[in-house]
Amino acid sequence: MIKVHSLAIQFDEGRLRILNQTLLPHEEKWVEIESVNHMIEAIKTLKVRGAPLIGVAASFALAQSALKKTSREELLKKAQALYEARPTAVNLMICMDRMKKVIQENFSIENVVKTAEAIFTEDFGLCERIANNGAGLIKDGDNILTHCNTGSLATAGVGTALGIIRRAHEQGKKIHVFVDETRPLLQGGRLTTWELKKLKIPFTLITDNMAGHLMSLGKIQKIFVGSDRIAMNGDFANKIGTYSVAVLANYHKIPFYVAAPYTTVDPECAEGSAIPIEQRKAEEVLGVSGSFGGSPSTIEWAPEGSPVYNPAFDVTPATLTTGWILDNGAFSQADIKAGALKKRN
Amino acid sequence: MIKVHSLAIQFDEGRLRILNQTLLPHEEKWVEIESVNHMIEAIKTLKVRGAPLIGVAASFALAQSALKKTSREELLKKAQALYEARPTAVNLMICMDRMKKVIQENFSIENVVKTAEAIFTEDFGLCERIANNGAGLIKDGDNILTHCNTGSLATAGVGTALGIIRRAHEQGKKIHVFVDETRPLLQGGRLTTWELKKLKIPFTLITDNMAGHLMSLGKIQKIFVGSDRIAMNGDFANKIGTYSVAVLANYHKIPFYVAAPYTTVDPECAEGSAIPIEQRKAEEVLGVSGSFGGSPSTIEWAPEGSPVYNPAFDVTPATLTTGWILDNGAFSQADIKAGALKKRN
Repeated sequence: MIKVHSLAIQFDEGRLRILNQTLLPHEEKWVEIESVNHMIEAIKTLKVRGAPLIGVAASFALAQSALKKTSREELLKKAQALYEARPTAVNLMICMDRMKKVIQENFSIENVVKTAEAIFTEDFGLCERIANNGAGLIKDGDNILTHCNTGSLATAGVGTALGIIRRAHEQGKKIHVFVDETRPLLQGGRLTTWELKKLKIPFTLITDNMAGHLMSLGKIQKIFVGSDRIAMNGDFANKIGTYSVAVLANYHKIPFYVAAPYTTVDPECAEGSAIPIEQRKAEEVLGVSGSFGGSPSTIEWAPEGSPVYNPAFDVTPATLTTGWILDNGAFSQADIKAGALKKRN
Repeated sequence: MIKVHSLAIQFDEGRLRILNQTLLPHEEKWVEIESVNHMIEAIKTLKVRGAPLIGVAASFALAQSALKKTSREELLKKAQALYEARPTAVNLMICMDRMKKVIQENFSIENVVKTAEAIFTEDFGLCERIANNGAGLIKDGDNILTHCNTGSLATAGVGTALGIIRRAHEQGKKIHVFVDETRPLLQGGRLTTWELKKLKIPFTLITDNMAGHLMSLGKIQKIFVGSDRIAMNGDFANKIGTYSVAVLANYHKIPFYVAAPYTTVDPECAEGSAIPIEQRKAEEVLGVSGSFGGSPSTIEWAPEGSPVYNPAFDVTPATLTTGWILDNGAFSQADIKAGALKKRN
């Protein structure tokens, strides 16, 4: 067994821990995961999040369960329960299918653990390749807009969209990142800012509704976002608000890139309209939850019982996307039309 | 002297009170205004807000000061200080110019008080006419999107954009309002929801970044927003995020209307780029302030000291605007080009 110690997950001799992302940036608190049900709760409540990372985390939860000598049949049931923890990100489903296949066809505790470890290691490598494939698109002096969090808190490695930005910074390019706060859960305001601060990459935090204004002032040269599921025609689901950013980018003729590993591409999904969109609870929009100066709390600023609409994701059509930065290359609209996503899978 | 008792301001025998809008919706607390400096603080901190209402409130502060036998010279200085309290909404400046004119040319305590009262009464009437001019644009069954707060909390009467929506509802049309929460200060989430709930108009609260997704699903038929300053070519400043809504409306071919009284039209301003945009403090974007379950408090969710950009307004060009609903009529782009705004002033 390998020792897994990444920014947001640790798996070491069967001990599984995740950084509780709902408490960032004010508290860095690791949660011991004791069971698959515990991991499902952590995924549903976004203690662990990010499309690639939830696939990794779910795989480790199964490995931990296997180490506890859970039966093959029980493991399959648990894999299915993890599969269903969140509906939009396909990485989770693809990882669970892979784990189920091992459990069904080649079962041993060692094989289950090794597969989970392989999923982690591969995701680390996929991030590296995405970062290298995308960094060349960023020029010295670029101001880059990003939405949600797509860094080391969302993956096993440097991240997807944020990994590209990080790589460009490591290459010595002078860049500045505008960070959409990403309501309602503030993954930009709480997590991307936290990562950028650690990495010493210059950034400015904005509310989501300021992005268009910045574009109109000519302050944004490139946009990079991640994805939770890419359909075969190039349409993709990502954090709510991504679609608006894409429309605004299109209007202002600003290149708009999506970055993701192949585990985000869903070969079963022909187009974006087929991607199920997770609806989350009203409380998230009525106010905010988190760790504010130390103690976790929830506040509501809207009138009690106000009706709310709260889709966690939206779908951006391929027609609004300039390029797809995957682990095996950077692709244009023409490449996607010619079947670049199909060839890969 | 008349008794002024509107939803957000009271002026009665020299006693001036404003509803502290920073504590809504959880606390309905009236603040006694004792001086012009006190009113300036209330305007700067948004205890009283809304382009038309701050003009009214500043006028009453001068009337109160006149009743306290402040000298003519002092009153002129105070009028100038009020004029400069916030830079973007022109109503405040237009009202202060009118008050200064009376103080300079026709000074008496009675005349100062009467002018402030006239400004209030006129704004009430302007709202009525805007509501009547715009309500016909709304059809039975329409879903309407609005941004920020433009109702009785922002004016002396029924409001501007929200007044139109209210009038359509009063006419018996079945409508549904989608309310942008309007970060960072949440005028939609805290104030528009509060007004709509009181008026029993069906609504759904969304985060700002959900508006585009809703449009893509065909769920929005019309958009109405207010304004803080309209330039002579029809460009207008309004709460940050309005510009993004306009671009999204344009992309989805959804009619996008701005509603305002003539006191929002700036004859000195040729086009939107000449409108000064107020930049506000970082704290507003780093977290949120308000009354959460009773006690006023401020929380910050972003990493301490994160750099922030916080323009309070943005400018929407006339080319993205379907119609201008003013107190003297509803105007198209062609009308504006033909000088509809010039004729009025």
